[in-house]
Amino acid sequence: MSLTLEEIAKAIGAQVSGDAKTEVANVASVGSATKNDLIFVEASAGVEAALASSAGAIIAGGFASGAGSSKPLLIAADPRLAFTHAARLLRPPRRYPPGIHSTAVVHRSAKIAKHVSIGPNVVLGEDCVIGDRTRIGPGCCIANQVEIGADCFIDNNVSIYSGTRLGSRVAVHSGTVLGSDGFGYVRDPATGRYEQFPQLGRLEIGDDVEIGANCTIDRGALDATVIGRGVKIDNLVHLAHNVEVGENVVIAALTGVSGSSVIESDVVVGGQVGIGDHARVEQGVVLGSGSGVLTKKIVRGKGVVFWGRPARPLREYLRELAVLARLGKKEPD
Amino acid sequence: MSLTLEEIAKAIGAQVSGDAKTEVANVASVGSATKNDLIFVEASAGVEAALASSAGAIIAGGFASGAGSSKPLLIAADPRLAFTHAARLLRPPRRYPPGIHSTAVVHRSAKIAKHVSIGPNVVLGEDCVIGDRTRIGPGCCIANQVEIGADCFIDNNVSIYSGTRLGSRVAVHSGTVLGSDGFGYVRDPATGRYEQFPQLGRLEIGDDVEIGANCTIDRGALDATVIGRGVKIDNLVHLAHNVEVGENVVIAALTGVSGSSVIESDVVVGGQVGIGDHARVEQGVVLGSGSGVLTKKIVRGKGVVFWGRPARPLREYLRELAVLARLGKKEPD
Amino acid sequence: MSLTLEEIAKAIGAQVSGDAKTEVANVASVGSATKNDLIFVEASAGVEAALASSAGAIIAGGFASGAGSSKPLLIAADPRLAFTHAARLLRPPRRYPPGIHSTAVVHRSAKIAKHVSIGPNVVLGEDCVIGDRTRIGPGCCIANQVEIGADCFIDNNVSIYSGTRLGSRVAVHSGTVLGSDGFGYVRDPATGRYEQFPQLGRLEIGDDVEIGANCTIDRGALDATVIGRGVKIDNLVHLAHNVEVGENVVIAALTGVSGSSVIESDVVVGGQVGIGDHARVEQGVVLGSGSGVLTKKIVRGKGVVFWGRPARPLREYLRELAVLARLGKKEPD
Repeated sequence: MSLTLEEIAKAIGAQVSGDAKTEVANVASVGSATKNDLIFVEASAGVEAALASSAGAIIAGGFASGAGSSKPLLIAADPRLAFTHAARLLRPPRRYPPGIHSTAVVHRSAKIAKHVSIGPNVVLGEDCVIGDRTRIGPGCCIANQVEIGADCFIDNNVSIYSGTRLGSRVAVHSGTVLGSDGFGYVRDPATGRYEQFPQLGRLEIGDDVEIGANCTIDRGALDATVIGRGVKIDNLVHLAHNVEVGENVVIAALTGVSGSSVIESDVVVGGQVGIGDHARVEQGVVLGSGSGVLTKKIVRGKGVVFWGRPARPLREYLRELAVLARLGKKEPD
Repeated sequence: MSLTLEEIAKAIGAQVSGDAKTEVANVASVGSATKNDLIFVEASAGVEAALASSAGAIIAGGFASGAGSSKPLLIAADPRLAFTHAARLLRPPRRYPPGIHSTAVVHRSAKIAKHVSIGPNVVLGEDCVIGDRTRIGPGCCIANQVEIGADCFIDNNVSIYSGTRLGSRVAVHSGTVLGSDGFGYVRDPATGRYEQFPQLGRLEIGDDVEIGANCTIDRGALDATVIGRGVKIDNLVHLAHNVEVGENVVIAALTGVSGSSVIESDVVVGGQVGIGDHARVEQGVVLGSGSGVLTKKIVRGKGVVFWGRPARPLREYLRELAVLARLGKKEPD
Repeated sequence: MSLTLEEIAKAIGAQVSGDAKTEVANVASVGSATKNDLIFVEASAGVEAALASSAGAIIAGGFASGAGSSKPLLIAADPRLAFTHAARLLRPPRRYPPGIHSTAVVHRSAKIAKHVSIGPNVVLGEDCVIGDRTRIGPGCCIANQVEIGADCFIDNNVSIYSGTRLGSRVAVHSGTVLGSDGFGYVRDPATGRYEQFPQLGRLEIGDDVEIGANCTIDRGALDATVIGRGVKIDNLVHLAHNVEVGENVVIAALTGVSGSSVIESDVVVGGQVGIGDHARVEQGVVLGSGSGVLTKKIVRGKGVVFWGRPARPLREYLRELAVLARLGKKEPD
């Protein structure tokens, strides 16, 4: 799809500087752009390289508007965000032809809304509800009583356990498992064996949640595991039974959250973070990659960065690293 | 299914206090219980809230038996364990109708016992043996010469490599891969390339083992990887080639165990633990979350908690954290 | 397949000591070998046990050639490498009968070369190209415009996103996801919501790459994620968008590499390592298990071992551990 800068500017709320009739057809990086591509720069330091590129037009901030530019510009307050919006226009998400593939095994009790696309080899159990325009990719196994909202994208080989509920505009990448049994056991002192504590609860996922590939999110033991609206989850993330995640939380890859912990809204969780059970990470906290929050701990402070295992405020952690490095230098090998 | 407290008490070895004819139909948490639900409390501190709930009956310990209770009670030595047993009665595991789904691709040489349920799109290779009442969920890919015992539950999209053997009453959650090649290479100094060391061994999994979602357990290189009876494994756990795990071991999420290491019986392994190759974790050790055991190390002591990377006894580790924190406070920013 | 020691010696470049007509049919470990098996020893310390075993023949180094051996020997400069080569002869990789299984859903535009084996329930999208003798296992979902070279082995339930390119002799174990969206978001300050940064790039995987089970490798955001020739990747590894990995790199399980980082050739990455975004691990570095490389950091030195979080040279790290342990001992509980 080709659009003029004028059309893009109008849609994303930017100002054109230069020829507003210039057409672009795609987005690209500065290094690989061709004349049909739109690129972006976030700071004045990048302007020179952007102008030297082969791109057809540049999204930039006010820092670029003064210069007599050799390429047409789109001036926006937040060039990266504007570029994101422009990309959505030029490269809209792929539409799948609606319909149920002949190889899909769909229970007759399923309620499937309009324009739904169900791919090859999908298995859809009893009493499932699928909303308008949702796409379910090949090989997905969806058990009974699962509800999926509108405009969702469930990619290949995803497994969804019974009773799981997803809101609208949820994206789930391949191989992810939603609603599996929690990891709760009681040891029988008479036999030494572990008996599974009942894992009969639910998993509820809000609107606009995006979940990466090969993640695992368990159902609640008796109540629900709850993922709030707008949460973004990277690949290989594990969320245990009864975890509650607020809104607009970001969780990077290989992080694990233990049972019954709470992550409040606007928290940012780095990669490989570990959060013990019954912990609480309060609103707006930033947990640095690899940090660890102990069982039952409360971590607090909007925008406060925590690091290390156990997690402590970044400044504290850096001072400890510094003193350790100094003492280590005096140590004989 | 509804049961009287009398029936439940008899089955789980508890004492009824109050109206033994009271019927309950389900288990619930204190917060969400309705009058048909059975709940539990583990300590006297919880009794008041339990009595104030809408639950129909409460499992409690001896601590609750003296009080004139407004709700009927089931008194048990270990209320959590008794609740677990009661839940199994009220909410027995789902039974799947026996049979082989028409879309399953089952090799004619497979030996399938009675009342087995094989779901849609299952692929079952040559000379496999499947025991009585075992359920194999949709999308599972089971290679040749795989043996699975009785009463197993293999959930969706599980991949089992050739020659793997599972005992009886084994549960495997979705997306898990059993018996894949180990990660062993030899570098050829002439070419700088890595050549795969033969990965021709087996994977043997004992009775009553439960394995979470998206785990990976590799086959042995020349001999076997062995998982003992009653081991419970959380999600996203990796066990490498030739690992040996004893009985009744618990391993939490995102833990990785390197090649040829031994985890003896009754060990508890926290989440995100790393165990190097050829290490030995002796009987009854507790490895705290995020701790690391170095290559060839032996970690010893029933009930002794180890923490940190490298793992050291908890008290030692806490003293080190304390001294570091104190020194850090004196450090300029 | 049975081979004489003479035949094996010729193929792998070893010298026979003893009866060159001795036949062996398989490889085994010292502990489990029978008279038809070939075993190996890497050092003189192992010779006695190898001779006491039931093995039919032994691959050993020059250290064993002097002794009057009770078993025939194959003498090689690198016994482990020679054993690896011998195993390839005695136990060649399984060949799958060529053909497309009747349950596979293959788009008519796919270009499939000779002797390709496509298993049950495979879904293969538009304009895919599959090279000679490549095997695609049951349940794989391969999207559009995917190119896979010759002699590849794609195991069960693998998901490959559109536009991904694999070289020749690539092995991908079960459950792995290739080319999924990167984890890049821009927060809209007006709404507090995260918007997905365009994830429109590609994933390119070189020849002779081997990827374990349940890994996730994301496509580039605008350009490509690139995995170089001969890279070996263990299970549950995550490589983010725009990561570049050189040649002959080894990455152990549960490691995560963040966006746009570079791992140069010949690097060895242990398990559970975390690498921040835009970092660079230079040629030949060894990152110990569990270590962490910070965002934008450069780690340098052929053969230099780094350890800890943040990663520092091993000697430095060990000195720090030593001083901390000493100070900890003086600390009251």
